[in-house]
Amino acid sequence: MNDKTLVAHHAAQQVEDGMAVGLGTGSTADCFIEALAKRHHDEGLNVTTVASSPISTLKARELGLPLLAFEQISRLDLYVDGADEVAPDTTLLKGRGQDLVKEKLLASSSERFWVLIDRTKLVDRIGARFPIPVEVHPYAWQMVQALLEAEGAKVELRLGTAGVAITSAGGMVLDAVFGSSLDVSTLNSMLNSLPGVLEHGIFHRLATSVFTGADGRVDILQPSPLDN
Amino acid sequence: MNDKTLVAHHAAQQVEDGMAVGLGTGSTADCFIEALAKRHHDEGLNVTTVASSPISTLKARELGLPLLAFEQISRLDLYVDGADEVAPDTTLLKGRGQDLVKEKLLASSSERFWVLIDRTKLVDRIGARFPIPVEVHPYAWQMVQALLEAEGAKVELRLGTAGVAITSAGGMVLDAVFGSSLDVSTLNSMLNSLPGVLEHGIFHRLATSVFTGADGRVDILQPSPLDN
Repeated sequence: MNDKTLVAHHAAQQVEDGMAVGLGTGSTADCFIEALAKRHHDEGLNVTTVASSPISTLKARELGLPLLAFEQISRLDLYVDGADEVAPDTTLLKGRGQDLVKEKLLASSSERFWVLIDRTKLVDRIGARFPIPVEVHPYAWQMVQALLEAEGAKVELRLGTAGVAITSAGGMVLDAVFGSSLDVSTLNSMLNSLPGVLEHGIFHRLATSVFTGADGRVDILQPSPLDN
Repeated sequence: MNDKTLVAHHAAQQVEDGMAVGLGTGSTADCFIEALAKRHHDEGLNVTTVASSPISTLKARELGLPLLAFEQISRLDLYVDGADEVAPDTTLLKGRGQDLVKEKLLASSSERFWVLIDRTKLVDRIGARFPIPVEVHPYAWQMVQALLEAEGAKVELRLGTAGVAITSAGGMVLDAVFGSSLDVSTLNSMLNSLPGVLEHGIFHRLATSVFTGADGRVDILQPSPLDN
């Protein structure tokens, strides 16, 4: 069992009967969906799920997990997803930039948000390896790019196979690189305040546990009360 | 000349040749668009405009003002619009909740943002008279309502003539009433941080001048440096 599968099974083992569970997107989230579906079928574990993306909707449906629409539920017990970077205070970067609104809504509306990673995703600061994706209304991209540049960012419009990349929410993605001196709390507030931004990739003070797989073992990192 | 027309003409008189001007929406903004179009035709004042809504686009086109799309411009010289409430620090409430993303984008992307009101719009605190409109993705309204209620708000889904009210961005509107003890800066940051929210009606630290018409006179209110 590789570290990704190990951590996904470890998380799935801790899901309790009757829970409403938000499903993330990506290769680690896929492993979790598979492990959860296995418990649902083999043990009769009773769960309902809400999917963060078209792709995880298809995956959950294919595996026979009971799915609800966002509109049918106002709070969830748990959201489980991967991340591209995890800082020591458990702030995350999600770099795909594709279903950010639904992912952050699930993270904010769940009692617990478990993040599944391998050790290579641990970084000293958010933005250490990846630009920060900023999902924008298509008509707003020029103005938002200028506002980001005024904050000192280097900004690139993300391209897709046949032109600009388009998100599942109909947005475009600006990949922004900021100077390392900007602390993540200030950066998060600034990005939150920009009009025309649908969502951005920094998940600040949302994760309640980070499960890290390394050398066949699972470590759990939790935000210290001081960070919150 | 009533106070609304007076203040609109006063503002239009101060527009300079060559400016890119954002156009607001509503009865006071309409007066300004008319006064600006008059200067464009009578004096040959050279301006380009960007409209915040379908209705102000139609108005500007009908009056022959040169219009640009949002995508064609990254900064403007001036945005002129009305407001439903203006607090002493020049924070605004825009209660219509209909074109909030475009309105706030114009406010943030313009060198100057002039607000035109009559004296009845001056309030002690934002939210004194109107609920705060929170425009949300349709799938997110239940979760956002729960998140707002967790912050102590009383929330109502806004209804329209044939069901729920739908904005020009395809969103739905939650009208939220908060306790008077919550300061507007905290409230603004909290609303900015909620995923699933397209935009909200508090315009904090954006207005550069508020033109108030009263008894045939125009007063100008500006944010003090201490408020910024």
